[in-house]
Order: sequence, then structure tokens, then C-alpha cells
Amino acid sequence: MTNSDNILIIGAGLCGSLLGLRLGQRGYNVTLVESRPDLRTTDISAGRSINLAFSDRGIKAMNMVGLQSKVEELCIPMNGRMIHPTTGEPFLSPYSGREDEYINSISRGGLNALLLTEAEALDNVTIVFNEPCTHVDFENKTATFKNAITKEETIKTADIIFGTDGAGSVLRKSYFLERKFLFSFSQNYLTHGYKELCILPANDGSFKTYKNALHIWPRGDFMLIALPNLDGSFTVTLFLSFEDGAYNFNNLNTPEIVTEFFTKEFPDALALMPNLIEDFFDNPTAALGTVKCSPWHYKGNTLLMGDAAHAIVPFYGQGMNASFEDVVEFDNFLDKHDGNWETTFKNYEKSRKIDTDAIADLAIDNFFEMRDHVANPMFQEKRKIEMALENQFPSQYASKYSMVTFNEDMGYNEAMVTGRAQDKAILNMIADKEIDLNSDLKSILNQILEETKELLDEDRVAKTMNH
Amino acid sequence: MTNSDNILIIGAGLCGSLLGLRLGQRGYNVTLVESRPDLRTTDISAGRSINLAFSDRGIKAMNMVGLQSKVEELCIPMNGRMIHPTTGEPFLSPYSGREDEYINSISRGGLNALLLTEAEALDNVTIVFNEPCTHVDFENKTATFKNAITKEETIKTADIIFGTDGAGSVLRKSYFLERKFLFSFSQNYLTHGYKELCILPANDGSFKTYKNALHIWPRGDFMLIALPNLDGSFTVTLFLSFEDGAYNFNNLNTPEIVTEFFTKEFPDALALMPNLIEDFFDNPTAALGTVKCSPWHYKGNTLLMGDAAHAIVPFYGQGMNASFEDVVEFDNFLDKHDGNWETTFKNYEKSRKIDTDAIADLAIDNFFEMRDHVANPMFQEKRKIEMALENQFPSQYASKYSMVTFNEDMGYNEAMVTGRAQDKAILNMIADKEIDLNSDLKSILNQILEETKELLDEDRVAKTMNH
Repeated sequence: MTNSDNILIIGAGLCGSLLGLRLGQRGYNVTLVESRPDLRTTDISAGRSINLAFSDRGIKAMNMVGLQSKVEELCIPMNGRMIHPTTGEPFLSPYSGREDEYINSISRGGLNALLLTEAEALDNVTIVFNEPCTHVDFENKTATFKNAITKEETIKTADIIFGTDGAGSVLRKSYFLERKFLFSFSQNYLTHGYKELCILPANDGSFKTYKNALHIWPRGDFMLIALPNLDGSFTVTLFLSFEDGAYNFNNLNTPEIVTEFFTKEFPDALALMPNLIEDFFDNPTAALGTVKCSPWHYKGNTLLMGDAAHAIVPFYGQGMNASFEDVVEFDNFLDKHDGNWETTFKNYEKSRKIDTDAIADLAIDNFFEMRDHVANPMFQEKRKIEMALENQFPSQYASKYSMVTFNEDMGYNEAMVTGRAQDKAILNMIADKEIDLNSDLKSILNQILEETKELLDEDRVAKTMNH
Repeated sequence: MTNSDNILIIGAGLCGSLLGLRLGQRGYNVTLVESRPDLRTTDISAGRSINLAFSDRGIKAMNMVGLQSKVEELCIPMNGRMIHPTTGEPFLSPYSGREDEYINSISRGGLNALLLTEAEALDNVTIVFNEPCTHVDFENKTATFKNAITKEETIKTADIIFGTDGAGSVLRKSYFLERKFLFSFSQNYLTHGYKELCILPANDGSFKTYKNALHIWPRGDFMLIALPNLDGSFTVTLFLSFEDGAYNFNNLNTPEIVTEFFTKEFPDALALMPNLIEDFFDNPTAALGTVKCSPWHYKGNTLLMGDAAHAIVPFYGQGMNASFEDVVEFDNFLDKHDGNWETTFKNYEKSRKIDTDAIADLAIDNFFEMRDHVANPMFQEKRKIEMALENQFPSQYASKYSMVTFNEDMGYNEAMVTGRAQDKAILNMIADKEIDLNSDLKSILNQILEETKELLDEDRVAKTMNH
């Protein structure tokens, strides 16, 4: 497979480096340009998103490029949420009733390095670092870069330009600001921000708390989470309102009040974090935003992918998985329309956008689930029923979480629509005391499936009229 | 009532001139600055939105400022939609089963002129024309204007600045571009655009077709509408895709093909429009966008109102009504917090935004209803039932349309949530043949109210868990 088109990819983060690798494997001449230094030779940890949740949609992408076994070495399986309630002992709430379904904690840097190295090994892929893009002329297919060290400006031309330059994409900004076509765009911020903290390894290098879980301290309006790293540490993230509530990022401004807050709300976490105050005041507080836009492409010239096209909040652990799935889906459309870029771009977006819109909305829903509902008795009853169903009827039942996370052949939108109806069915059956936990599981399963189908049918009739 | 604060209002369109009048009535020193010439002395018809739908929420605002009787003289009542099907005779579909509920067609220019004249009559209100705003410094409460004739630049300072400068608001742009705070923003375009056309009066000055209706030619993917003007003419609007379908704005590029399209799709309208070709090629094709954003205010310094805060598509006939309602709602918060601008702005937005978001979404729903469903038998059956219920039980039943349009004391969001559930209930009952049109109306009413309540309850239980 060879192709003489010259491809320019702006941004060699996770999405860009996977795309570069895949297009390189397909035989294109690829130039990948990254604004930051080479993370394999420079320590550029920006104090955020050190590790990420990696699951089946991401794994599918690694299989596509033949890297699954290499990636496995970077993974720490997390079988469920370890919930730390305000009072009482922590308990594990599994992600699935099927034993082979779990998510992983993976190092962003380690995974990015692997993808860069694999891409670079191809003769037809070139990677350039320290070259921030300052402007894209999407009409003439040129991009301007200003070297971060020499400050020298260069202009690169290409047959096709991809913008995989993240939530602050320069290509997307040029679509927005140049007003050459109708560009739908949204940026929506939560009223909460986040700050990364750390639980360091024990002196013997071991994990200070249970390794194979995503730890959550749900507190209603805010929460703390922790994901394990290979070196025995945990990356901890505090999600908290900027302005509202008794404690918020605006008023947590002295060591005393931060200590007071953690002592009151997260005493068991605080006991593992002697470094809390230093981390808290060294690390930035960041915003949580969702970006949607359309069109992603301009003619057959340029295309946005990954966070540049659809930045989402982190609460479903799907940000990287969704970006990797972009590349898998795009690869399928290349098979269908290879050589006709405009048709490829148009059909890819038409098929893909409904799914990236869905995961954006699901990620916001999950913020409420994580910070609040995991500690709610009705939610816990629902999860208990669902775990039993997944365990007893592994091929007949999947929770919304399982559909989103473990059913990589079901699109996000289908998972959202079906999963929401199913949740609604179960919650209403619990509220109306229509689920008899003493009856056999098989009849509970049928009851839920039937009620879900009815809700979906009702929506369909109403929707026929509404859109 | 007096107040020494100096108020600067950018934009003297419908919302700005009403706001200026109201704040003037409250005793503030008001300066209203408009980018265009004075429409009372200059012909500045921009070839679009010549007339507008005016209904109960707008009337409430006119009552607030004491202008209801003067405004009535500008109104042409429209009792329903006159539907022009592809085959067969046109028929009237009433807006309500209550005889006193109808909407009005009103001249944008006439109404704006009235508001300007009333505002100008107050000693404490000054209006300046031909002064486009180029920049707002919301931190220091200054705005820069560049005179359209002399090109002279002036800077005005104020205690409070309002941005009522429409969908392309300069104040909103400064919020977005200066990035001094987290600003959530969206602009979403439909794939359809619109073009205004005209049915001229008959030679004797009379209306060429039925005067007291909003005429619609629904054709599935596109539609034509017409609203009457006081001079005997109708303003006609074609809503059509830019790119898709057999006929679209891109390919309607010769007189022959435009004539072919109208001959095929709108023969009875074409017969009334000998001037079609001239209008079609003289008038611009415009986009249909929805703008949402938050926050609307910066501290107690500046506030966006009207289209500047929430531009919507025209399909519910609520754009002007929503902007006028902004001023009524804002006036209520001034009563509560007068003197504390930041609290007034914050509480106003907190209460108001959920309603303007709702009318934005309802307006998009109605695009599908108007262009498609009004010609659909199931929709017509639903409307028939609803008209009968409104007629027989005027105090017990209101359709979604009635709640939005005629129940000015119910917020848009409540109208949307209740109205959607009610529509869903009725449509599903029709689809399941659960409505027996031979049974008495009272039992149909109870059946619908009960089913609606059940749907709302189910949503509430699911929502408790979802947000």
C-alpha cells in the first residue's frame, strides 16, 4: 500500500501520533509536527493528566496498529471503583459483572512515547518537535510554525492537513475566526475545576492503598479520585467548584484551610498525602470544558480529529479512547473512499459526530454519577441488580457503563440512547417497588428488557414528530 | 423614582429601545447608542425580518411600559396557520381552541420607531444614531464607538453598560476573545438558510390572499411562509437547505430554475408573486443560527440582553417576545435588588437563562413541525384533539403551543418540559390506538393528563439520578 500524497499532521499527542503511525502504515508520506519538546528525551510533565483510563475502544485501536502487547505492559487493570464513603469502610463497586471486563490506568507519557517511536521507525514518517503552529491557511493548505527555540518561522505545504492539536486547536480557531463558511461551535465550562495531587509510593516502592481500582471519595458537590501509576504512586485529582459551596478553589487559599478541608472530608486520603500542601499550591487549577463543532473538515483539504474536534470532560474515562476510536473509524472510511479525501472526510464526520456528541454528554452525566450517586442507596441497588444480571446473563445484559466502556462495536450514541432508557426503566422500577429481589433473576432481566423496549418505543413515536 | 447611575445601552433595536424606555421610566440617566441611522427618518429596510410574530409575552412588556393600545394599532391578528398542501385546498389550522388566543403580525420598523419615540420623550434618555460600537472594555466600563459618517472615534464611560446589540454583539465578542473568565459560548447553524420575498398588495390595496393567518406551504425538507403587513402586502420567507436536496440555495441560481421550483412546489404562491425573480436575486440569503452563552454579565459592570445573550431561530415566532420578556424579568429583579447591580445581574441570569435556553430548543423543534408535521395526518389528529380540548376545557387544557405562546406567566422551560411530555403522551396514545375519539372528551382529557403526569414522574426519577 503506497500513496504519494503528502500528509501534514499538526500535533503529535496521543491522537496525532496514532494517526501518523496508521497513515504511515498505509504508505502515505507523513510529517508530524509537535509544539512541545520530545517527551521521550525531556521531562515535560505539565502537572496534569499524568495517567488516563484506557479501555476496549482504545485497545481496538492498538490492535489495528499491532501494538496491543506492547501497550499491555504499560497498563494497570482497575476492576472497579473503590468507594470511600464519609463514614464507614471503603468498598469495591465493580465496573462489570463479567470478570474479563475492566478498565486500565495507563501513563499518558509512556503511551505517547511508544506511539512516537513506532511511527518514527517508518521510513515515510518524519516527526518534528518544538514547532508550535501559529496559523493554518486551509484554503491553500499551508501551515505556519514558529520554532519554540530559534523563533524562526517556517511555512509547510501539504496535500492534506490534519489538526490533532487538542482542545485549543489552531486549525479549529482558523475555521472559527476566518468565517469563510458557517461554522457551528460550542465551548461549555463546568462550574467546577480540577487540581492534580499525588499519593507517593511507600518507602519500599509498593502502593500505599489498594492498587487495582479507581478510588473515589464522592461528596455530593465535589469529589476526589485516584488512579494508580506503575511506579507505585497514585495520581489524585480533586474536582471542586471554583466559587460555590463552603469550600471551593477560590477560598482554599491557605495551607490551614486546605488541611482543614481534607481533614474534614478526606481524612483517609490525607493520611496518605504528607505532600498535600506542596502539591496543592504548586499545581495549577484547571477548567473542565466541552468543545463541539461542525464541520470538522474544509473541503478535502483539512480535517480536525481527537480533542481538536471534540474535547470532553474526563468523567467517563473515554477522552483518549474516543480519540483513538476516531482513527479506527477514519481508517474504515479510508478503506471505502481512499483517494477521494473530501468524500472520506464528509462521510467520516457524518457517521462519527453523533457518537462523539454522545460521549461528550455521557461524560457530563457521569460527573454527577461519580461525585454523588455512587454513594446513593438507590444507585447502589441498581448497580447490584446490574452486576448480578451481567454475571448471570453475560451475553444478554450490559449496563450503560458496559455498553460505553466494553462494547467497542457499539457506537457511543447507541450506548447512550439504550443505556439511558435502561437506567430509567430500572430506577423507576426500583422507585415503584416493581422489582422483587426475591423473584428469580431471569424474570427481573425480562422485566427490565421489556420496560426498556417500551420506553425506547415511546421515545421513537414522540421523536418521529419532534424531529 | 430616580437614580443617579449613568446607563449606557449599546444597540437601540427592539430590546435596547424597550430597555432604554423602561430604565428611563425608572429614573436612570440613559444613553442609547445605535450603529444604524434613525429608522424613523431613513429607509433602512435591510430586506429581512420586515414583520414579526408578536404575542402575549411581548404584550405583557408593552403593558409594563404603558404602550399596549398604541402597539395594537400596528398589529394584524393571525388566528392560525393557513396550510397550503401540495394537492388540495388550503385549510386553516387554529393556534388555539380558545377564541381569544391568537398571534399578531407586526412591523419591526413600526414597533421600533414607537419605542424610540417614547424613550426619547423622557428628559433623562438620550439616543444617538450612526455610532457602531467597536470595542467594550468591560473591566473599566468604557465603550468605543466609530461614527459611521465622520469616522470619528469616541469613548463613552458609564456606571453600567448593557449590550443589546443583537446576535453579533460586540460586548459578547469581547467576553469571548479577551478570555478574562470562563465564558461558555455556542453558535449553531442549521443546514438551512432563508430568503425574504414579497406578495404585493392587489391594485386596490387589498390583500391578495387571506389576511388573518400565517400562511405555510410545508414541503417536508423545506417550506415557504407568509405574514401580512398593514399595507396589504405579505412578507414571504423561503426556508431551504443551502446544499442538500434536489433544489437548494446553491443550485437555485438562474431565473429558469427558480421558476421551475416555484411552479412545481408553490404554484398558488407563485401566481401571487409576479415579482418573484426580481426579489429572489435582489435579496440576500441569510443563515439561521442559535447563540447561547454564559455568563451574561461581568461583575456588576455589564450585561447582555436580548439576541446578544440568546439568539434563536424564528420558527416559534418568539424571538422578539423573548427579548421583551427579558426586560420584564429584569425589571422584576431590579425591584428586588435595586442598587446592587451585581446581585441583580446574577439573580436575573440564574432565573432567566433556563427559559431562554428552552425557547431556543423549542424554536428548533418547531422548524420540523412547521416544514413537515403540519402536513402529517398523525400531527393533524393530535391538533384536532387539542383544539377540541382547549375549546371545551379552556381552563384545564393548554397545548404546548398555547403554553409557550399564550401563557405569559408560565416560563418557557416549564412550557417545554410539560408540553413535550404532553405531546409524547398524545402521540403514543394515537399510535397505540388508545384514544377513542368516540368516547367523551372529558375522559380523553383525563387520560391525557394522567399519562402526561406519569411520563413527567418517570423523567423525574431518572433525572434525580442523571443530574
